[in-house]
Amino acid sequence: MSAPVYLGLVHYPIYNKNDEVITTAITNFDIHDIARTSRTYDIKQYFIIHPLETQTGLARDIINYWQEGYGSEYNPDRKEAFSILNIVPDIEKAVNHIKSVEGEYPVIVTTDARKFANTVSYAKIREDIATGNTPCLLLFGTGWGIEKSVMGKFDYILEPIYGPCDYNHLPVRAAVAIILDRLLGEAWWAK
Amino acid sequence: MSAPVYLGLVHYPIYNKNDEVITTAITNFDIHDIARTSRTYDIKQYFIIHPLETQTGLARDIINYWQEGYGSEYNPDRKEAFSILNIVPDIEKAVNHIKSVEGEYPVIVTTDARKFANTVSYAKIREDIATGNTPCLLLFGTGWGIEKSVMGKFDYILEPIYGPCDYNHLPVRAAVAIILDRLLGEAWWAK
Repeated sequence: MSAPVYLGLVHYPIYNKNDEVITTAITNFDIHDIARTSRTYDIKQYFIIHPLETQTGLARDIINYWQEGYGSEYNPDRKEAFSILNIVPDIEKAVNHIKSVEGEYPVIVTTDARKFANTVSYAKIREDIATGNTPCLLLFGTGWGIEKSVMGKFDYILEPIYGPCDYNHLPVRAAVAIILDRLLGEAWWAK
Repeated sequence: MSAPVYLGLVHYPIYNKNDEVITTAITNFDIHDIARTSRTYDIKQYFIIHPLETQTGLARDIINYWQEGYGSEYNPDRKEAFSILNIVPDIEKAVNHIKSVEGEYPVIVTTDARKFANTVSYAKIREDIATGNTPCLLLFGTGWGIEKSVMGKFDYILEPIYGPCDYNHLPVRAAVAIILDRLLGEAWWAK
């Protein structure tokens, strides 16, 4: 028994480098890399969360190319990775989708470079997923992170990822890979 | 005490999806993402290994933009990540560079989706790095992996990365992030 895990990439409300709240653009590599990594770790759906139709239309074209177009014949593995993609306008729509599929609201877990009162360890969330039934929605921010009043509504914040030095500017695609491996990968350290 | 760790991204000799040996193209996202992840995990140098000047010239232009051009003012963190980049034409040049800096040839470690006679666990290489002095060169293949006679010359092959299901098509950028976290990240499972 293990809990179903969903993932969302948030493009609004996001801070830019000047601490202003903006909407970030959808990037092609975020679609491809995070879909492939999510599929490897058995994520049920990868939500691209963006409020603007001008951007989501473009994302839909890319997804269709790999799902239905020439890309689906050229690379069936990519087609399979893209099958878990779902574009929604806001976090609430992702949450409601999970409720409708699973019959229960998800626990919402995110990550941040700062510590919060509800910051938890990777070991705790790994254990919760491995032994629980309640669905889990892992949210990742783009740009310089998710706006703080929205962050305040999430259930848990995972600890920052620390390397052995003080430089800490991982791409979101790398953060997703590391966090999915910590939460859902095999216990390689015990082998 | 811990061993100095270097990383190389190999573009030749590489298999394509039809098992033919080719030279792959350098991609912009491999430069950015792997430089940022490498810098976070304190990698001493990130070698982009490519034999063709037409490709490496383009990579040099991108690197110069972020090291010396407008990019270096716009994003100093990116400038710092790019400071560890080094473009070399083949694996031997990377190895010789490490020998000249460290006074000793590196142990060469790579990864593959298949198992080999010299396949080792992440825990072993993590321990070797943490307690040793001998430099370590982590090599990653692009495309469908490094040609097998070259693979046969490396000291160790890390186990494949297994997710909880049978789909296994991680982007190289995600594999780099997961492997650096396993070898050099904090012992998060023991917290």
